[in-house]
Amino acid sequence: MLNKHPKFTAIDESFMRRALVLADRAKGLTFPNPAVGAVVVDAAGRVVGEGATGVYGGPHAERRALAQAGGAAAGATMYATLEPCSHFGRTPPCVDAVIESGVATVIAAVKDPNPLVNGKGFKRLRSCGISVKTGLLAKEAARINEDFLWAAATKRPWVALKIAMTLDGRIADDNGGSKWITSAASRRTVQEIRRRHGAIGVGAGTLIADDPKLTARCAGKTYYPTRIVFSSTENLPPNSYFMTHTDETRTIVVIKNKRRQGIDKRGIGEKGGVEYWHTGSSDAAESINNFLDMAYAEGINSILIEGGQRVASAFLENGFVNKLYLFYGNKIFGSGKNGFSFSHGLPVNDSLILNDIDYQQIGDGFLVTGYVTNNPALR
Amino acid sequence: MLNKHPKFTAIDESFMRRALVLADRAKGLTFPNPAVGAVVVDAAGRVVGEGATGVYGGPHAERRALAQAGGAAAGATMYATLEPCSHFGRTPPCVDAVIESGVATVIAAVKDPNPLVNGKGFKRLRSCGISVKTGLLAKEAARINEDFLWAAATKRPWVALKIAMTLDGRIADDNGGSKWITSAASRRTVQEIRRRHGAIGVGAGTLIADDPKLTARCAGKTYYPTRIVFSSTENLPPNSYFMTHTDETRTIVVIKNKRRQGIDKRGIGEKGGVEYWHTGSSDAAESINNFLDMAYAEGINSILIEGGQRVASAFLENGFVNKLYLFYGNKIFGSGKNGFSFSHGLPVNDSLILNDIDYQQIGDGFLVTGYVTNNPALR
Repeated sequence: MLNKHPKFTAIDESFMRRALVLADRAKGLTFPNPAVGAVVVDAAGRVVGEGATGVYGGPHAERRALAQAGGAAAGATMYATLEPCSHFGRTPPCVDAVIESGVATVIAAVKDPNPLVNGKGFKRLRSCGISVKTGLLAKEAARINEDFLWAAATKRPWVALKIAMTLDGRIADDNGGSKWITSAASRRTVQEIRRRHGAIGVGAGTLIADDPKLTARCAGKTYYPTRIVFSSTENLPPNSYFMTHTDETRTIVVIKNKRRQGIDKRGIGEKGGVEYWHTGSSDAAESINNFLDMAYAEGINSILIEGGQRVASAFLENGFVNKLYLFYGNKIFGSGKNGFSFSHGLPVNDSLILNDIDYQQIGDGFLVTGYVTNNPALR
Repeated sequence: MLNKHPKFTAIDESFMRRALVLADRAKGLTFPNPAVGAVVVDAAGRVVGEGATGVYGGPHAERRALAQAGGAAAGATMYATLEPCSHFGRTPPCVDAVIESGVATVIAAVKDPNPLVNGKGFKRLRSCGISVKTGLLAKEAARINEDFLWAAATKRPWVALKIAMTLDGRIADDNGGSKWITSAASRRTVQEIRRRHGAIGVGAGTLIADDPKLTARCAGKTYYPTRIVFSSTENLPPNSYFMTHTDETRTIVVIKNKRRQGIDKRGIGEKGGVEYWHTGSSDAAESINNFLDMAYAEGINSILIEGGQRVASAFLENGFVNKLYLFYGNKIFGSGKNGFSFSHGLPVNDSLILNDIDYQQIGDGFLVTGYVTNNPALR
């Protein structure tokens, strides 16, 4: 690995790995901002400051690390998992803080594709005499913010899909039973995956059947991603957790139909803390397409779709899914409901393909993750 | 690991591992005998003889290793993956050769459960003053001959089932297309699995659709397991590879119906090199049950079932499958034919469970193996 980047040392790599850990920990707290980690190291090789992006509107990773370093930042090296921002958002530009601190060198993993930054941060630093090196552990850093980078590039939210299946691809037995197909260890991993997304989406059928909380409970801490239910009606169970806990987080019902009256020009109405988003189309693909435009405009950068079969299949077969999380339990039903049921099945020579497959054993089952390519709906 | 077996040293373990490699290489050549490996090591720690079981009727591993060792066997230690046999079969008892050779110590992995042996080999050796130690790498050794050990204990063949599915559990697209769901690397692994079985079985539908050779092509060498087709009629495609290559290996058509006239009392008739086995029952479970009794009586110790859906599901849901080999490609069809379709689907709390799951990435897909437990059909 290091031979490919002779401009970086093993020491550089170890500090950047530390910055990546900080970034990863912040994931789920910073939406719609990316999760960034920064480490400041003085000339003697001592870590004098560390920071990660705080909740939206709070200081960015670089400012936090520099605040911790104080005067020790002078002549130091800063490792940052993303290009420091060069624009005024909720907070002033990070590059200003870097320049003021006296940092001599900035080593960054990836460029920020946000058009407001996109290399301008690096340029500004260099113009002030700071040495800038980029590309260290770029792939790892891009993975942590794959959602943010995708959203910045496409103006659409990153969509991941999680499904828990038997070894024969079933999500429920003949009687609809699905508790539990996977192990407790797998379900803990699901919480970790939820935490990394700005929003969690399920179909109305899942809401009615399971009354899910759609929170992410990780290591004693609870995260509250935006909640989304896909429905064809506004009539959802009034006593469901979803309808009665709107104070916890943003709560959205996405309604697949023609745009209706009594809502604003975005197609959004509000009632009792619940937003009702009318997509303006009763066609499945067009409705999702419109929804994704609305979601990005509303500041949602990433969505985890958790089913059921109809919602998952509609997102997947129409080309809207970036990443799949396929959990397999160690069971075989031999019958029941399939995880996916496309309205148009795909032929073997032109099917959906999962690339960059990664898999891990979890309890007595396993998790397969991968990126959707060869998507017929996108050709 | 070694702490659990203080009676064995790391040196012992390394020689037994060598014997296991020899045994594993012989797998597929020795049916219906087990595949055994033996290594003879002199007092100076030099390997003076090695051997593996030859084709049925040829010398066993121990005799081959001792023949190679010659006089150097005197005072040596023999490592054997299975208890040396103590009975006359096609060859004289191995224990006689061991005793004559002057070997001082025998270290064996597992006992031979064959009632004709079953500890009698060890007893005979000890009675002649040979030191006998057992249990070294017993689990690994038992795995290599899991089929033989099962058959010896139950008087029924070991049944493994191999299936190649998409990530969503499909074995064919909406048009029946299945070439190829998995990668070339996976298909090479299938050949290795075939080699380890005494017989390969498919349904008549698979024969008609794919005209499979049912050979095992491994590293330039071709193996010819017994071929079995499950059918409800004697009318199979006369020009199929199966019907026209009966000179290559034993060829059996298993017919699920009432016992018919014109065949011998075993229920077996023969025509043009093809055996027709009439199971005497048109009930799926009873027919398979009768078939397995016939197969064991006919010297078939292990069978790999390769589908299609109906045959695979009938074996699995009726409790006849010991081990599953589930190959997954990196594809999603979203529709098509499921790998398994039971006549009675299983509920989530009482479904088939796969234990001792092992999985490995192969090409862009993966292979999951496991042992079937919690089989409702067996309760």
